[in-house]
Formats: sequence, C-alpha cells, structure tokens
Amino acid sequence: MTISSTTPADAVSPAPSSPELIAAIDMGSNSFHMVVAQLVHNEIRPLEKLGEKVQLAAGLDERNFLDEASQHRALACLERFAQRISGMPRGAVQIVGTNALRVAKNARAFIRKAEKLIGHPISVISGREEARLIYLGVAHSLSDDADNRLVIDIGGGSTEFIIGQRFETKELESLHMGCVSYRDRFFGDGKITQLQFARAFVEASRELLNIRNRYRSVGWHHCVGSSGSIKAIEQVLAHNQWGTHKITPDGLVKLKDEVVRLGKISQLTKLGVRKDRLSIFPAGLAILMAAFDVLQIEEMEFCDGALREGLLYDMIGRIHHEDVRERTINSLQERYHIDREHAAAVEGTAIALWKQLAEQWKLPSEELTELLRWASRLHEVGLAISHTQFHKHGAYLIRYSDLAGFSRQTQQSLAMLIRVHRRKILDTVFDEYALEDADPLKQLAVALRLAVVLQHSRNGEVLDSIKVKANKRSLTLIFPKDWLQSRPLTCADLEAEKGLLTKFGIDMEFKEEDS
Amino acid sequence: MTISSTTPADAVSPAPSSPELIAAIDMGSNSFHMVVAQLVHNEIRPLEKLGEKVQLAAGLDERNFLDEASQHRALACLERFAQRISGMPRGAVQIVGTNALRVAKNARAFIRKAEKLIGHPISVISGREEARLIYLGVAHSLSDDADNRLVIDIGGGSTEFIIGQRFETKELESLHMGCVSYRDRFFGDGKITQLQFARAFVEASRELLNIRNRYRSVGWHHCVGSSGSIKAIEQVLAHNQWGTHKITPDGLVKLKDEVVRLGKISQLTKLGVRKDRLSIFPAGLAILMAAFDVLQIEEMEFCDGALREGLLYDMIGRIHHEDVRERTINSLQERYHIDREHAAAVEGTAIALWKQLAEQWKLPSEELTELLRWASRLHEVGLAISHTQFHKHGAYLIRYSDLAGFSRQTQQSLAMLIRVHRRKILDTVFDEYALEDADPLKQLAVALRLAVVLQHSRNGEVLDSIKVKANKRSLTLIFPKDWLQSRPLTCADLEAEKGLLTKFGIDMEFKEEDS
Repeated sequence: MTISSTTPADAVSPAPSSPELIAAIDMGSNSFHMVVAQLVHNEIRPLEKLGEKVQLAAGLDERNFLDEASQHRALACLERFAQRISGMPRGAVQIVGTNALRVAKNARAFIRKAEKLIGHPISVISGREEARLIYLGVAHSLSDDADNRLVIDIGGGSTEFIIGQRFETKELESLHMGCVSYRDRFFGDGKITQLQFARAFVEASRELLNIRNRYRSVGWHHCVGSSGSIKAIEQVLAHNQWGTHKITPDGLVKLKDEVVRLGKISQLTKLGVRKDRLSIFPAGLAILMAAFDVLQIEEMEFCDGALREGLLYDMIGRIHHEDVRERTINSLQERYHIDREHAAAVEGTAIALWKQLAEQWKLPSEELTELLRWASRLHEVGLAISHTQFHKHGAYLIRYSDLAGFSRQTQQSLAMLIRVHRRKILDTVFDEYALEDADPLKQLAVALRLAVVLQHSRNGEVLDSIKVKANKRSLTLIFPKDWLQSRPLTCADLEAEKGLLTKFGIDMEFKEEDS
Repeated sequence: MTISSTTPADAVSPAPSSPELIAAIDMGSNSFHMVVAQLVHNEIRPLEKLGEKVQLAAGLDERNFLDEASQHRALACLERFAQRISGMPRGAVQIVGTNALRVAKNARAFIRKAEKLIGHPISVISGREEARLIYLGVAHSLSDDADNRLVIDIGGGSTEFIIGQRFETKELESLHMGCVSYRDRFFGDGKITQLQFARAFVEASRELLNIRNRYRSVGWHHCVGSSGSIKAIEQVLAHNQWGTHKITPDGLVKLKDEVVRLGKISQLTKLGVRKDRLSIFPAGLAILMAAFDVLQIEEMEFCDGALREGLLYDMIGRIHHEDVRERTINSLQERYHIDREHAAAVEGTAIALWKQLAEQWKLPSEELTELLRWASRLHEVGLAISHTQFHKHGAYLIRYSDLAGFSRQTQQSLAMLIRVHRRKILDTVFDEYALEDADPLKQLAVALRLAVVLQHSRNGEVLDSIKVKANKRSLTLIFPKDWLQSRPLTCADLEAEKGLLTKFGIDMEFKEEDS
C-alpha cells in the first residue's frame, strides 16, 4: 500500500518514460470507473471507458468497516479492469480511492489485496485532492475561458465544490455528503416523502453553509456539474422536457415535485431514471437542490470530464516535469518559512549517501529517492510551531495537511520520515506499516538522519565525497583524509548518532580514508 | 493548576486593579527566586528579593519524576515565600515554573500542592516564553539603547538566548542544557578532568550549532549575561583579577585552566566560588565557554535583571492594557488567515451567552471570560491545515506553539476549547483535568459551541437579544418572536446540537418568546 520495492504508493510512481497507453481508475464510493487512453503529442485520446456500480460505500457497516460483500464486488470489478490493462508498465496506470476508502477502518488490508490483484499501486486521496483532480478533468473538457467557473461533483460519499479559472483552482472543498450516504440516511426505506426529502435538503444545506460566503465572494460565471448523479438529473430533465442542456432551479423544482408525488424509489422509472441509479436518485437531487439554493446557482451545464480524466492529465503533467507535487513542496517551504538553503544542503547530502546505500541495499528505486528528496526539503517544517519536538510537529503538519498531488499514503510516509529524522527512533512509529513497507522507510530514515547530522553546522558545505559501505545491518562512513580531524563537533554528533542507530538495529562506524 | 473558580491558571489572572504591592516568583530548576516590589507611577521599586537554592532539577529521577525530597525542599521554600506575600490579592502575584517543571512527569500533582500552599496560581511556561520574560527583565535593567543585544541566561535545566532591541525581541531560543543537568551528566563524581570538561563543552557546542547561523546573521552589539551562573563566573574572574566588569574569552580560558588544574569541585572555593554554587560551577562555565566559542562572543557584561523582573514588567503591561497575549492572538489570526469577521461575530455571541450562563452557573470570573474570548478568536485556526477535523488541528497548533505571554496550562485550556467546539464531544478529552477544573471548561465549551452554531450562516449578524435560562445541567435558549421561524437551518443546527449536548450531560431546549 505504501512504499516498498514491489508495490510502491501510486503517488510516488515515476512518470512513464514514453507510454503509448495510459489508464486511470477511480474507485469511487458509488461506481468504479476506468479510462484507457492513448497519448499522442501530449493529447489524450480515450480508447475505452468502463464503469461499474460497485457501491462500495453501501458496504460500510456502522463501525465503518467494509463488509465482505462490498469488498468482493470491488475486487471482482478490478479483476475485470485488470484484464484490460494487463502488461501496461508501472506508472502508466493511476488508481485512486476516494471517500469510502478514506473512512473505511479496514481500507489498508483491502487495498493490499486490491493492489496484488491489479498489479498497480492504489492511492487513497484526500477530499481536496479529489476536488483538484476533478477540476483538472473538467477544465480539459471545457472550452478555454478566462472567467471563473464553479464545478460541482456529487459522489457516493462526498461532494466536491471547486472554483477555478482556466487550469488553476481558486477554491477547493469536499463536503461530507454523497448520494449513497444520503440514500442510506434519508431514503433507506424506499419511500420518498415530502418530509424525507426536506430533511435531506436541510442537512445538505447545513453542510453548504460552511462554504457559502467564501464561494459567493469569489464568485463564478459558469456553473458545471460533473458526476453520474448530475448526469442522471440532466437526462431526466431533458426526457421530461423540463430543461434541455441546462439544469435550472425551475426544472429542479418540477422534478422534485414529481419525485415526491411518485413517492417510491421504484416508481422513478416513470420519469426515465435508469434502473441502476434509481435508489440514489432522490439523494443526489436533494444535494443538488441544496447547492442551487445555498449558493444561488442560476443554471448548470453538465460536463463529462471527471476524476478519471483529471488523473490522466495529472500523469501527463508529471511526464513533462510539471509535477504539481513539486509546487506543493515549494509552497510549504514558503508558507512555513523553511530555511531553503539548509534544506537543499541536507537534500544534497542525503541523496549522495542514499545513492550508495540504495545500491548496496539493493533498493535502487526512483520512488524512494523522490520521497527522500521531499522529506529533506520539509524536515524542518515543524519549527514553525515550536523548536521543542519539532520533528513531531512537522510530522503532524505533513500528515494532516491537504497537499495537492499527494496521496494519503505518501503523506504518511513523508510524515514518518520527518518524525524520525532526529532524536531517538521509536520502533513503534513503524507499527502501522507491514514489514516489507517499513524496511525501505527505515533505510531512507538512516540516510536522512546522517545527512542532518553531517549538515548540523549549517554552513552549506557540499558533502559529496563521503563514501558509504553498507551491509544488511551495518554501514561505515568513510571521510576524506583529515576531514574528521578538523571537525570535532561532527565527530561528537556522529558518535551520538552511532548510539541512536544501534537501538534502531544499525551498526554505524565512521573513519577517514587511509586510516 | 488550570482553570477553576478557586485556583485559576496564572496566565489568565486579571491584572490587579491598582495594587500597591506586586510580587513575582520564579521556580527555577536550580533556585527559586522571589521579588516583592512597590508599583509607583508605573515604576517598579523592588522592596525585597529572596532566593533559595532548591535544586529542583536535581530531584528528577531517570524517569523524569520529581522525587519526594526535592518536592519537600520546594514546598518548604514556597512556604517561606508565602509568609511574605500573604494577603496580597489575586493577580498581584505571578508565579512561574520553568524547565524542571516542564519535563517532570508528575509536575501536575506537585503544582496542585504548591498552589494550595501558596494561595496563588502557578504557571508552567515554555522555554521561549521564559526567554521573552528574561529579556523583558534585562531590557528594563539596561540603559535604553538602539542597538541589538544578545542576552544569555544559564539556568539549571535550560539556557536562554535572546536577541532584542529596546523592549522588542528578535530571536528567542531555549536550549536543553543547564548547570544542574550538565553537572549531573558530566561532573557527577565531584571531579573535573580535562576530558570531562571537554565533553561538557562539546555537548553544549552541539546544541548551539542549531542557532549559530541564525543568531550570527541577526547579529548584536552588546552581549549581556543574566543568571546566577554567569554572576558567579563574573565574580570569580574579578576576584582573581582575570577581568573586571567584563567576561572575555581570555578570562574564561584562564579560569577554566585553573578549574581543571584544581581538579575537584570541593577545591573551587580557592578561586572564590561560593559554597552553594560549587557543584554547578564547572557545568555553567562549560556552557558559557561553548556560547562564547560558537557564537564568537568577544565580551559579556553581567546584568541583574532576570526572569522575576520580567514577570513584574509583564504584569504592569497587563494593567495598562498592553497585554502581550492580545498581540499573540492577533498574530496567530494573521498567520493562519483566520476569518476575523466571523471570529468576532462568534466572540460577540459567545460572550453574550456566557454572561448570562456564568451568572446563573455562578461562575462570574473574568479569567473564564477572557479564555472564551481567545478561544472564539482562534476556533478556526486549524482550517489552515485541513477542513477535515479542523477542530483537532487547531487544538494541536494551540497546544504546541510557542505563544508569547501564555502559560502552558492556559494554552492547554484554549486547545481543549477549540478541540470540543464542534462535532461530538468526547468526555475523555477532559480526563487530564481534575473535576473542579474540567467543569468550568465544559461550561465554557457549551457557550462557544452554541455561538458557533448560531453564527453558522456566517453573515455577521449581531445576536445579543437571545436569552438563556440555565440550571445546573440544563439550559433553555429563548429567541425573539418569529426569529426561529424564519431560520429553518438554524433550527436544524440547534436540533443537532441538542443531541450532541445530551451526550455531554446538558439538556438544551430552545424556543421563541411568548411561545
């Protein structure tokens, strides 16, 4: 699920060097979607789109565990998807999980199984990251336009609201309401009464109050909807001639009156609702109406671009070195006033050590190197809170912040590295990882710790002539002649670090060449 | 120890309205100090200074528990101090604990005893807050001077380094090294060998590397030392004619050579070291020499102003509404981009409700009101990290940040209020409080929660006509006629809140007047 040499986290996968085919899978709370596309001169040509109504969120029990049946449905769907992408190289397939996997307590075990089956890493992404990717997908589907647009995507477990201009987002939010979770809360008995509908509407309106003023003050010229729920509503409106190509408040009111008049989920086929969308239709409608009401939306167009398209475009960005993750790291450095020079010196030293270590430890993976780079750049982020225990504060910030472009697992691994970059290393910190994931992280941590120790004097010295000899559980640092002798404080630091690494199961020695 | 109607945390004590006498007690890791002063036209006239070598830090065992003997010494000293300040009103006595109480695992229980005995609240302050107060004390003792000055204070468990100009600090740091802790680590056997001294010196130098570049790039014109350790060194230098009124690198080297030559703690009397300072003298000297070496200090003057004087001046500031805590709250609002208008609306509503509640719950204390104001202003601080669970992120930030002017206990209480301001209230959150401290906090939390609910629509409406009737475990909100009727979302919010408060042991009702 996270970092290992066999199944690394998706978000640290290298971009494919020049793939003919790329694919994206969105393991949504309601449906799973896959798109396979050809990449021609930076343009994406979709070859195939698949969707299956897995209803993962419906399988969450009251303790938020995914039940066996839903896991089974999900794995069966992935198995079918897997056939279509078999043989595609690492990095050419991006797979994300959203709200249902964000909240499921047993997500980790499930994802492990799913990754084995599909042969590619799966990233669980935050609500805001989901919103960012949705916008990316939608923005590429719409004509270029200098005005602000509001994009709404009603998912099974969450609904995303984005204001953006061209390809840049200005507001991103993911609210805890979705057509599956609201169906279960408000329409679980198959009936649709005035009261049930009003309760769902009020609940969604309450959620929306949190963003109303901010969104309305930023404002927008066009409003675009982009999910299965909104597509279904648009189609039903057209089918009944309550609006064509546009969703309007009037049309929604007519639709709602009719929905309540019919009074039963099963009756909605009369309006032209597709069978597989019947049960979630009124919940999606209540959420959309609340959005129209609270945000005072006058009309909305439907757009087919969505999360999975956003994933494809995000992949192209990485191929062309427009990795949004680099921007995220930069803006974190800025926001928390990180000493960039020092961070760069630590990065340089860490990478110089790591290259030697990785070769000898047989871990020559690009993902791990990338992770070490990011951790080096951010290792002092916690100083913004307090000097005392700043490694813990940094770990907290990186673990819980919404970081554009990063999966939750990558954030967790980064947080972990920052957590153990100084002071005693508690082995329990790694408890939440499986052994094969924890080991490479521990080895990265060793490289980072040594770099921090060697750059302790903060004078920006380039330290690339230090040699490392490593065995499984031991390493020797070999410094140029007379190097150590003129640096008594570094010797004291290394001596202290040697003691700390012993407790971590690593025997560290250091000496000068020819000595 | 924290907030209660009988023994509130020091840092939220109201300033005395116009006291004749004020007092400050510094429960240091090595010595306890008290100063009693008269306040005449904003000038402080010290009447009496007392100091006792309690050696609290020496009583910390390997698990960081204060042993019985050290607690006994501390309480006996406070008992003597108590006589001198008996009858002085709340707020006229400020008492702080520093490093030994920061690290002691059983500090809470000890402080509770100490507060009972002395009759005034005791605040444990962070290292940076300690540094701020030291600078305040020193700055008032020195002539006004537009140049930067570096102030160093070697305590029993920590050493503070401050760069400031006039009364403003530019750099504040507290490093984990002190004359008591270093004595125990390096000179525990009563001997002073070249090697022992070198090890203490290297260790201190390593600590100092963390601040070297930053401090040297800010720079200073004068360097001032302000602790018992530095005073002792200055006196010994003068006594042996190795420097008068100035501490210089040369003088320190001569002193150190002689100290090592004598080779035993007990022999240091020959240099003129006072008996009660003998055991900690070489440790303080090693730390000071490391500071001279790493920071390249050319000369240092001793200055008598210190933490306790800083406390007195901080008190005067509060009396004259120059409360540094207000500035801290403002800068937090700015730094984390808090929506100030909304925060002010919540504050207004919370205070309007609290005034009524406090009267009926018989908790009309100014400290609690102040705490509620601050919590209102900061309740959304966690949004800077993520919307998801932002109450938890806010609590983390407030709990662990170095906040000028605040005691740790006050920060903890603020963090707690932010933690429980929305969503389910876990009773376990209050577990670390004694019952009499937890209750008022819970009651404040109710006022804050209701204000947040009532201001949910974020339209800045002034809500001061809501009446509250409260009993011990129940309250009724009474709204103006037709008020609720026109606000269905607020009704839904209040309904939801009613359910959450029930689990918290509060029965909440709401209705309109005349209904």
